[in-house]
Amino acid sequence: MTITTPKGFKASGVTAGLKASGNPDMALVVNDGPLQVAAGRFTGNRVKAAPVKWSQQVLTTGALKAVILNSGGANACTGAEGFQNTHATAEKTAELLGCGAVEVAVCSTGLIGEQLPMDKLLPGVEAAAAALSADGGEAAATAIMTTDSVAKNAVVTSPAGWTIGGIAKGAGMLAPGLATMLVVLTTDAVIDQPLADAAIGTACRYSFDRLDSDGSMSTNDTVLLLASGASGVEAAADEFITALTDLCKDLGKQLLGDAEGSTKDIAITVSGAATEDDAVEVGRCVARDSLVKTAMFGCDPNWGRILAAVGVSKAPFDADQVDVAVNGVQICKAGAAGDSRDLVDLKGRAVAIDIDLHNGAAAATVWTNDLSHDYVHENSAYST
Amino acid sequence: MTITTPKGFKASGVTAGLKASGNPDMALVVNDGPLQVAAGRFTGNRVKAAPVKWSQQVLTTGALKAVILNSGGANACTGAEGFQNTHATAEKTAELLGCGAVEVAVCSTGLIGEQLPMDKLLPGVEAAAAALSADGGEAAATAIMTTDSVAKNAVVTSPAGWTIGGIAKGAGMLAPGLATMLVVLTTDAVIDQPLADAAIGTACRYSFDRLDSDGSMSTNDTVLLLASGASGVEAAADEFITALTDLCKDLGKQLLGDAEGSTKDIAITVSGAATEDDAVEVGRCVARDSLVKTAMFGCDPNWGRILAAVGVSKAPFDADQVDVAVNGVQICKAGAAGDSRDLVDLKGRAVAIDIDLHNGAAAATVWTNDLSHDYVHENSAYST
Repeated sequence: MTITTPKGFKASGVTAGLKASGNPDMALVVNDGPLQVAAGRFTGNRVKAAPVKWSQQVLTTGALKAVILNSGGANACTGAEGFQNTHATAEKTAELLGCGAVEVAVCSTGLIGEQLPMDKLLPGVEAAAAALSADGGEAAATAIMTTDSVAKNAVVTSPAGWTIGGIAKGAGMLAPGLATMLVVLTTDAVIDQPLADAAIGTACRYSFDRLDSDGSMSTNDTVLLLASGASGVEAAADEFITALTDLCKDLGKQLLGDAEGSTKDIAITVSGAATEDDAVEVGRCVARDSLVKTAMFGCDPNWGRILAAVGVSKAPFDADQVDVAVNGVQICKAGAAGDSRDLVDLKGRAVAIDIDLHNGAAAATVWTNDLSHDYVHENSAYST
Repeated sequence: MTITTPKGFKASGVTAGLKASGNPDMALVVNDGPLQVAAGRFTGNRVKAAPVKWSQQVLTTGALKAVILNSGGANACTGAEGFQNTHATAEKTAELLGCGAVEVAVCSTGLIGEQLPMDKLLPGVEAAAAALSADGGEAAATAIMTTDSVAKNAVVTSPAGWTIGGIAKGAGMLAPGLATMLVVLTTDAVIDQPLADAAIGTACRYSFDRLDSDGSMSTNDTVLLLASGASGVEAAADEFITALTDLCKDLGKQLLGDAEGSTKDIAITVSGAATEDDAVEVGRCVARDSLVKTAMFGCDPNWGRILAAVGVSKAPFDADQVDVAVNGVQICKAGAAGDSRDLVDLKGRAVAIDIDLHNGAAAATVWTNDLSHDYVHENSAYST
């Protein structure tokens, strides 16, 4: 149940030798049509990797034949040589598929600031093209993993007869403006490009854009949607947007659950906000607060830290009105102590922080993780 | 060499029993004049502790006789009862000193969300008043410590014949808009209130406001300056502002050096910015990035993470122009790899990250710490 579940797609995952571990590190996803509709979203970071710059350019056509992806190197902060390497990767892929380079998006993930070893990567493109198959989606999901402990796949199927599939990677550097991730979404629904673009925009807004694992925004985030139309069934816009959003939320939760060193998946729901943007901003302030995150790691329902984090936001509220519940216990009422913190059970992985600003009718949920010893351990020794 | 070094001040530090540890937890600082000039700065957090609200109010007169401080409880998020407790503390202090409550500022630090035990605190005020002495500054510095491992004192003396002294506490929740700190500054210089206010504003701007240990902004930050005029020497404005700024930078470095669980003091200097505000914003983006901070803990000069953090800022720059040096080694040139990262020595506590945006002539330095196992340990078990 992956990106090759929808009709009209082939995929592969192979080992080019980019990773010291010898694990698979190149993936290829091909859309055999009849449609080649495509849409995408990219990192909000102003330092963009070469493959992001390339893919943004080629996506202006609204069509893609294929996506070539590598782990084992981000190709970010690599100058003109890095961009030429991305271009060469797309050219090689296009040559093997019999299409133009402008029909090939490129995604890379791994360490920033190192040139990709093209002597290994280009033979890897050949191997990936040779390995393409109608059930290669899971191999592709595996090949894009970096510090991920499990591959991430998801599928939703419409009773109308079309299907959406997705793969994702990402286990750190997860923050607003997309999380650090590569995501490829495929569908056999018959949709036009404006609907593809609207759907991926809405889906990202309510899923990946509300994931803030560690406040760090990546240089390589890419989410691509490819539509083959191979089901022959035209999708209703509302149903398609909802289904794609649900699928992206599913993938987002898989990313959250696999975040580096995390022991908690924390859903911060802010209600009573004047606007949805206010609710998201307050949620992010709490999601990014190291003292809240370490308290959650310590199973400590320290609501004072939550209120202090809310106070950093620019959203309008009255500090003497704010309620906070943790896992259903109303430990802060009207800005002061409420029910006993001893009633809060924080032993499980899932944590719900509910904040009511009592300042309006808008609400939003932002997801984050705790800050643990293992997070520090994994990230203090990544590039060495 | 502390706040009782300038003439005209008495201070004390005593144990009221607010801390489970039995360590000193109440301090009193009294200005015996002839002047009672005062100025202050407070947390930028919109959730303000009761003593912050009180002290902001009484400081509108521009004069203070005394400051009463307690550790062992922040009196933040404590509602009307909390504010009444602050008021009662000021009243009690005023009664013992023979002045009005409006001449007494109150500072509290400790856990948010708990009411102070007034049955212990008010006798503590009596004990503090009884213990006042002309060399009680260091006892006061000790009594305001929370997770601090050492008391923080500083003094600067002008050849003109006046002196400034300072004490500070703070070892976490250090972030822009003041760091989590209580600071009391005293001087025997003859200055008027507008100069006191201008001096504390400039001093905070270039010291505490540029300290960002962990991105968390406190509810209780307070910096107070009391001028007794007891030296009889009128201070030149420029000299006084410079001296106060230097003293606050000294205290700021003491806070940084004692930050919870830290192993590195990191000075992030951003140059080539269009404006000083841009330079500060870029510095803060880097200072708050968990992946940069964990890399520094791991002695890993991972400049890609630094560039990714710069890219999150809104300051104008061209990603292909940015240079980054770590401890003097130019590991990133024009947005790509420069000298070998193997040349960077990160074994010491002091780390210098120098970022040149090549986009203007403004510069600023922001100070932060690394993110370590001990930070997670100390903050995952603070309130329990």
